[in-house]
Amino acid sequence: MTRVSIVGGSGFGGGEVLRLLLSHPHVEVGQVTSRRLAGKPVTKAHPNLRGATALKFIHPDELLPCDVLILALAHGEAVRQWDALAPMAERFIDLSADFRLRDPAVYETAYGAHPRPELLETFVYGLAEAGREALRGATHVATGGCNATVSALAVLPFHEAGIIEPDRSVLDVKVGSSEGGARGNSASHHPVRSGVVRPYKATGHRHATEVEMLLSEYGPARVHLSVTAVEMVRGSSVLAHLFLKEAVTSRDIWAILRGRYGSEPFVRLVSERTGDYRFPEPKLLSGTNYCDIGFELDEASERLVVVAAIDNLMKGAAGQAVQALNLMLGWDEVAGLGFPGLHPI
Amino acid sequence: MTRVSIVGGSGFGGGEVLRLLLSHPHVEVGQVTSRRLAGKPVTKAHPNLRGATALKFIHPDELLPCDVLILALAHGEAVRQWDALAPMAERFIDLSADFRLRDPAVYETAYGAHPRPELLETFVYGLAEAGREALRGATHVATGGCNATVSALAVLPFHEAGIIEPDRSVLDVKVGSSEGGARGNSASHHPVRSGVVRPYKATGHRHATEVEMLLSEYGPARVHLSVTAVEMVRGSSVLAHLFLKEAVTSRDIWAILRGRYGSEPFVRLVSERTGDYRFPEPKLLSGTNYCDIGFELDEASERLVVVAAIDNLMKGAAGQAVQALNLMLGWDEVAGLGFPGLHPI
Amino acid sequence: MTRVSIVGGSGFGGGEVLRLLLSHPHVEVGQVTSRRLAGKPVTKAHPNLRGATALKFIHPDELLPCDVLILALAHGEAVRQWDALAPMAERFIDLSADFRLRDPAVYETAYGAHPRPELLETFVYGLAEAGREALRGATHVATGGCNATVSALAVLPFHEAGIIEPDRSVLDVKVGSSEGGARGNSASHHPVRSGVVRPYKATGHRHATEVEMLLSEYGPARVHLSVTAVEMVRGSSVLAHLFLKEAVTSRDIWAILRGRYGSEPFVRLVSERTGDYRFPEPKLLSGTNYCDIGFELDEASERLVVVAAIDNLMKGAAGQAVQALNLMLGWDEVAGLGFPGLHPI
Amino acid sequence: MTRVSIVGGSGFGGGEVLRLLLSHPHVEVGQVTSRRLAGKPVTKAHPNLRGATALKFIHPDELLPCDVLILALAHGEAVRQWDALAPMAERFIDLSADFRLRDPAVYETAYGAHPRPELLETFVYGLAEAGREALRGATHVATGGCNATVSALAVLPFHEAGIIEPDRSVLDVKVGSSEGGARGNSASHHPVRSGVVRPYKATGHRHATEVEMLLSEYGPARVHLSVTAVEMVRGSSVLAHLFLKEAVTSRDIWAILRGRYGSEPFVRLVSERTGDYRFPEPKLLSGTNYCDIGFELDEASERLVVVAAIDNLMKGAAGQAVQALNLMLGWDEVAGLGFPGLHPI
Repeated sequence: MTRVSIVGGSGFGGGEVLRLLLSHPHVEVGQVTSRRLAGKPVTKAHPNLRGATALKFIHPDELLPCDVLILALAHGEAVRQWDALAPMAERFIDLSADFRLRDPAVYETAYGAHPRPELLETFVYGLAEAGREALRGATHVATGGCNATVSALAVLPFHEAGIIEPDRSVLDVKVGSSEGGARGNSASHHPVRSGVVRPYKATGHRHATEVEMLLSEYGPARVHLSVTAVEMVRGSSVLAHLFLKEAVTSRDIWAILRGRYGSEPFVRLVSERTGDYRFPEPKLLSGTNYCDIGFELDEASERLVVVAAIDNLMKGAAGQAVQALNLMLGWDEVAGLGFPGLHPI
Repeated sequence: MTRVSIVGGSGFGGGEVLRLLLSHPHVEVGQVTSRRLAGKPVTKAHPNLRGATALKFIHPDELLPCDVLILALAHGEAVRQWDALAPMAERFIDLSADFRLRDPAVYETAYGAHPRPELLETFVYGLAEAGREALRGATHVATGGCNATVSALAVLPFHEAGIIEPDRSVLDVKVGSSEGGARGNSASHHPVRSGVVRPYKATGHRHATEVEMLLSEYGPARVHLSVTAVEMVRGSSVLAHLFLKEAVTSRDIWAILRGRYGSEPFVRLVSERTGDYRFPEPKLLSGTNYCDIGFELDEASERLVVVAAIDNLMKGAAGQAVQALNLMLGWDEVAGLGFPGLHPI
Repeated sequence: MTRVSIVGGSGFGGGEVLRLLLSHPHVEVGQVTSRRLAGKPVTKAHPNLRGATALKFIHPDELLPCDVLILALAHGEAVRQWDALAPMAERFIDLSADFRLRDPAVYETAYGAHPRPELLETFVYGLAEAGREALRGATHVATGGCNATVSALAVLPFHEAGIIEPDRSVLDVKVGSSEGGARGNSASHHPVRSGVVRPYKATGHRHATEVEMLLSEYGPARVHLSVTAVEMVRGSSVLAHLFLKEAVTSRDIWAILRGRYGSEPFVRLVSERTGDYRFPEPKLLSGTNYCDIGFELDEASERLVVVAAIDNLMKGAAGQAVQALNLMLGWDEVAGLGFPGLHPI
Repeated sequence: MTRVSIVGGSGFGGGEVLRLLLSHPHVEVGQVTSRRLAGKPVTKAHPNLRGATALKFIHPDELLPCDVLILALAHGEAVRQWDALAPMAERFIDLSADFRLRDPAVYETAYGAHPRPELLETFVYGLAEAGREALRGATHVATGGCNATVSALAVLPFHEAGIIEPDRSVLDVKVGSSEGGARGNSASHHPVRSGVVRPYKATGHRHATEVEMLLSEYGPARVHLSVTAVEMVRGSSVLAHLFLKEAVTSRDIWAILRGRYGSEPFVRLVSERTGDYRFPEPKLLSGTNYCDIGFELDEASERLVVVAAIDNLMKGAAGQAVQALNLMLGWDEVAGLGFPGLHPI
């Protein structure tokens, strides 16, 4: 068994990593740190794990060496604590934005100057569908942002195929309240947050930079991204308005999607003519590692609408991390990620 | 008092018209028809009106002449029954799509051939903000579609000002379940509909045609419209991605909005730098006739994001109708429309 | 016009008082205080009032004398600040629990020793249906607690009629998140609070004492009250399990309810055999001052189930206050309280 | 591998059975019948299973013999079709109410005369916690009703211990919309069902009879049961108001609960003094087979409040069935039931 510990385990992302690792066939969970809840059972933060584990949070200072360390800290903390963390394991997976962007200049436009720019090139981007081979045997992985993940998976096949205008894509993302993390504020107070359609990042979302980085591997790209909070807890769903260079048929689109994702274990093509769930539906993905993708062709306006959905805490964070872990360690890529999701929900 | 009757009064739109008219200072409610519920109290369909009225639904065959007839029938019914309805009043307001589009050719692209194309030119479009003068003294009015209303109000000022590219606007609309009407189907069954982010009209929405008709008064226009159902009952919110011809400042945008809407009684400019409700929020508009409009400028990409929200049953249907009624009859434009909305909700 | 000011106007209850007073035919709103938001527009806390008022919050120290002062402060503050507040007006309505209970000994069991017990007898309880005459001309009124209000209205007629066992009534109350007030905490964080069925006060709810005080006017009474938070923002609904001394018929129950509430302007009897809204439904009452009451007789077990619902912020706070204000000042009891509620919602 | 087929597999209960069996270590799923969807992929009804199975629904007439047949039909259908079904397998688990009640006379009071009363005694009640031994090796099992299951598990320990008055227990149950099944009606239409607190069975719920049957094994019992629909999809939560014969301490209650459930794999005792999830919370149980139980002692009124929660489709139907299957076949009782649930959700 490989011993995996979690740093910053009281948040939503850390909790999902813990849930997955507890039933992972090749993993033994080592320690889980939380400054705030040190000494308390992990179930204090993750009540769903009652009965599944007797683990208690430890203080970060008590962290012991392990095989793999998963970092689920607030933005900026992983890089700040890096010198202390680096000696604790041979392999690292970071869920934050600290090491996601390869180019320090790009990082700076989105987040300000990187405090340790030399570290950026040591990390591999964690989204298997955007670079599986680099993950095999990797020692340092930074998982993608949730909205960037779902957006990139929606646009990549068509950008790669060269059928869309590379600078006109409009990405309209709808997200649930768990994206805000486990700590509340006045805007997340239930009577306020309930039932909103709230453009919480209408422009300037940092994930736009991340999507452009992923797309740029296949040619220059520019995206126009807005994120709106809606009434749900989990889920990130993008409706991508892509503009076609020239007319294509639905058959063409299917061929591109099947070519790109046909053998992906965690991408499902969902585009049905009838039924109550004709398109990807984030609620169906709660707890799963799937990204569902569908489309509709607007022949009148040469617009291709692509719809993709994920569970932001899973494919957008913890599930992506475990999928990357499986690849890093050479295990079955789907190990520990078998939950199919619930219906109705 | 002016006697107003409602044909097709058991639906959501008809119910809201009835609610508004019951407390309107210049209106006496005449009859309310419902084929299905004839003889039953109107509160059977509109339980909020318990105690407010003892009216019963009548069968359409029992309809008597009145001053104003408001038609809240299913699509296609108003035109089909027109010859029987026309003699019953001097003034008409139709909430359906039957008489919204002036040009029979345009109507045909969206809905198929119009059965009575000669009637189209007899109706005035009901959105006061897009043509107040035509409504004063009008005898036949067709109110706008809910999604078209909110979209047009978001785009109009900037299209009129000529600062946006006229054919690139992407309109991403989020709507509540009441848009589907009072009769359910398998997709509106609560366990299925609950918590969705469902692209129910990703392309080809008929309201796109309507928006383009309204915009075209100020020059050719083309919009790319997608509608997604989210977890709410009332509300239609558009996030309009508009592309600027050249760089503008926030001050410019404010000037355009104030110029266009500064004296409008039912348009509020909502664009704040801080607070929990920085942008228009549809839930705050439940029961009101407001359209709230805000914006954010994406200077990096020369994109102007405009956000607008309405209560689809009010400004998107019944409220718009009563506002039009007030103009038709020369009354105070805001009569009967004073409810400010609730918070929290 | 009577000048009414609000102390503690940034909370949910104060916001609803303000909304009601702004359209009240006999009231001119004076000042609205908020320590935290002094100098900011009242719409910062109450965004629904955008366009309806240009008022700004003032600091409590700037409060000027007025005709009526409405206190919407946190528990304990009204009594603590009483000496400063008392000279500011001739009439007072307090929405807190500070002056609700007449008997200091009873108060002590629920809240601890009262700091100014001599004040308790100077206040009249604000629920018109439980003592209208005392409110006419009253100068000091303390409105009832929301859960106490809905519970008392459900049980009173049957306790008064003497048909139920006086010490066995079980009151199972379901409430929305607005009962927690405008300031959030970790348990009201949307991802946590969303969709709960959370017994937040399974035993020992202070409102039980209040219900017993109201019932005791018609003989000794004891109630067993539990309050559960469910997924809604507004609303308090009680399902009262009452045990019959001897068999009665539905006709008897109707007679008792009609006798007690037949002429009440804000109590509606809702008990239908068919339809989608056979019982009181709190969501239909959002923004209204109604208490809806219905029942079902369990003949097998000699149990009478009474269901009552209110909007906790209206009949349970601000609406009850304005109704009391109308009685205190000798105005039409329903003035300013005409909103019938929305459907669908 | 044991071959298990499902009759009536397009409903919510059948779908959950299918989900569980597809990942069960000892089961091979045989056929799944649906009259309405015969020939269509099972994912048409259960979209969460996309990618997990290529099974198609078969018409009931095509059913082949198998090892175990699970019946998930509408009420009354299992008994009506019994002669055709009986030869198809050696073992049966029925999820309906057809065979739940042992005594034909009792059945008659709840459902009317049983068409095949002689069959009732051939079935064993499926709730392991109420009779595990009878399930080992059983050939015919009828699972308990969801509300009866959660209610019985809440009351049983205290009724067995003899500390509560046996005829005064008030069971206030809150349920989600999935209890109404996969087919909608006007009351389940989203704009209508959304956000309700709807007493859909205030008195006369058939599950009361079932609870009394289970309790009666330890002495005569009578319960007063009301069921209220609230805003959630999955979940059944009971707040049981139990009246103590004499004073007890919290320590006594803990001892009784631990004695009864200490070694139960699917009962968790959840009763914490602090934290955001102090009591059982149904949303945390979505997809799991747990019944969580907690309590609070009202010393003032000698009332014991017990709170219990389940996922109505799991412990209240499909999960209970698979747990029973495991016992019938002599497998590990928890096989296939390892999902711990999600947080946040």
